[in-house]
Amino acid sequence: MEKNCAVYIDGTIVTPENAKISIFDRGFLFGDSIYEATLCENGIPLFIEEHQERLQNSASLIQMPLTHSLSKIKSAIVHTASTKNFKRGLVRWIVTRGVDRLNIFPGDNLQQSLIVIYKELPDYPARWYKEGLKMTLAEVKRNHPQSTNPEAKTGNYINSVLAAKEAQNDECDDAIMLNIYGEVTEGTTNNVWIVKDGEVRTPSLKSGILKGITRTKVLEICEKNKIAYRETKLSKEDLLNCDEAFITSSTKGLVPIHSIDQKVITKGFGKVSGKINKLYEKLTANYFKSFNNS
Amino acid sequence: MEKNCAVYIDGTIVTPENAKISIFDRGFLFGDSIYEATLCENGIPLFIEEHQERLQNSASLIQMPLTHSLSKIKSAIVHTASTKNFKRGLVRWIVTRGVDRLNIFPGDNLQQSLIVIYKELPDYPARWYKEGLKMTLAEVKRNHPQSTNPEAKTGNYINSVLAAKEAQNDECDDAIMLNIYGEVTEGTTNNVWIVKDGEVRTPSLKSGILKGITRTKVLEICEKNKIAYRETKLSKEDLLNCDEAFITSSTKGLVPIHSIDQKVITKGFGKVSGKINKLYEKLTANYFKSFNNS
Repeated sequence: MEKNCAVYIDGTIVTPENAKISIFDRGFLFGDSIYEATLCENGIPLFIEEHQERLQNSASLIQMPLTHSLSKIKSAIVHTASTKNFKRGLVRWIVTRGVDRLNIFPGDNLQQSLIVIYKELPDYPARWYKEGLKMTLAEVKRNHPQSTNPEAKTGNYINSVLAAKEAQNDECDDAIMLNIYGEVTEGTTNNVWIVKDGEVRTPSLKSGILKGITRTKVLEICEKNKIAYRETKLSKEDLLNCDEAFITSSTKGLVPIHSIDQKVITKGFGKVSGKINKLYEKLTANYFKSFNNS
Repeated sequence: MEKNCAVYIDGTIVTPENAKISIFDRGFLFGDSIYEATLCENGIPLFIEEHQERLQNSASLIQMPLTHSLSKIKSAIVHTASTKNFKRGLVRWIVTRGVDRLNIFPGDNLQQSLIVIYKELPDYPARWYKEGLKMTLAEVKRNHPQSTNPEAKTGNYINSVLAAKEAQNDECDDAIMLNIYGEVTEGTTNNVWIVKDGEVRTPSLKSGILKGITRTKVLEICEKNKIAYRETKLSKEDLLNCDEAFITSSTKGLVPIHSIDQKVITKGFGKVSGKINKLYEKLTANYFKSFNNS
């Protein structure tokens, strides 16, 4: 359990110990829920509007039209974050289809549950940035978009849990999953990038991935700063033979990849990824400076 | 919420209203849990040993070695069922990877949560047996075995929830899912069968399905009674052009299929499926008669 954190459940702030939900909540019974998570600085949730838009999209992809308005959800997030004085925090908000009978067929007029978790975020290990992450290529394949669409951020995360278990077994920091056609998709909770011959490349949405918020920001940074980039199919060989590699995540930002399946890529950020990282840090710093809670 | 039911949570029997679990339980956060469900008559869980064996298999498939012994889990089930006097009931037992930090990477030494839900089961609609079920062919495709293996019965059921939503939208009783290669797999929570030219056919495990307990029993019945049968690839066309069709489920037993995508198959059980149904009813009646709680 997270200790240093505040939890909002359907209108009430509770301690982590008291943060409980009915076992008849479809989120628990079937993973029938959607969520978002992002970094906070001094209680300000990074790129919250983009996350809200994605929440709406996830809701639509699982046929669960949101009954809480986005502005109500945002208020709950901002309110929960205001109850703690964390310099760095992570906020995760979850909407479930609600408490129901024990039946795969959703009942009528369910009341969606809204949960916000706001926890303190320690600094990530310095090794991640100086050396880079050790990645394994997972045996488990990323969910197929026609089955459990990776574009919907739902409570169905066994696929990524199994990849994470592989990373643990291989003593790696994270795992990269291929899809069943052998194309590179993404990490357990992050998007994957390579740099080859000066060009930035990342799997296209067609490979079956989450449309990462940081991913979109990095693409915009490339576009704006005339850094060559391409959303494309990537193979395992492309990964292993790249010049630089990194991941992106809303909570972690950019993190360099040191090695993939023990093949060393670089130590820390390379020339191109380091440049993008600086531009991204500037972008987020500006965001936190100019954020308006309204 | 189920009203007429008993819930066991980690050693304690509670009312449905008090049946709550930590939001930090990985079952809630990631659907990181496994479960089983079966029919009960007078508190006797049907084919419990087979379900326990499958629970063990699901645990192994998601790399979650059970820390509760199977005999402890069985005691919890039998005990929970003993607290209510239901003639017909449904028991569902869930094991989660436990309460954890908010992280896709499972922590060390987690304490797995054990939950048992025992609810009264009303008779199913007489129409189901007299007429048969109206089935739709779902647009959503069954999860791929290399991604989220349908053979593991986990808390990741969005795939089936989406198929169930399609059934509701099409005013059908249930949905049949194909896999991404176009092969017939299964219903939302049941296996699918056809009879063609006197031969009983059901998708083989290779098509990516749950190894249903009732499915195994029906295969054994066919074997024992010299009814021709085959586990095989089935196409949408096979489904639409069969002579009889039915589903099997641990709670529902055999239920005839009336129509698939509005194409009428039969009214109620046909000659072969009717015969199998009688044999299955005899098998379960004998089971309930001879069950020993030890």
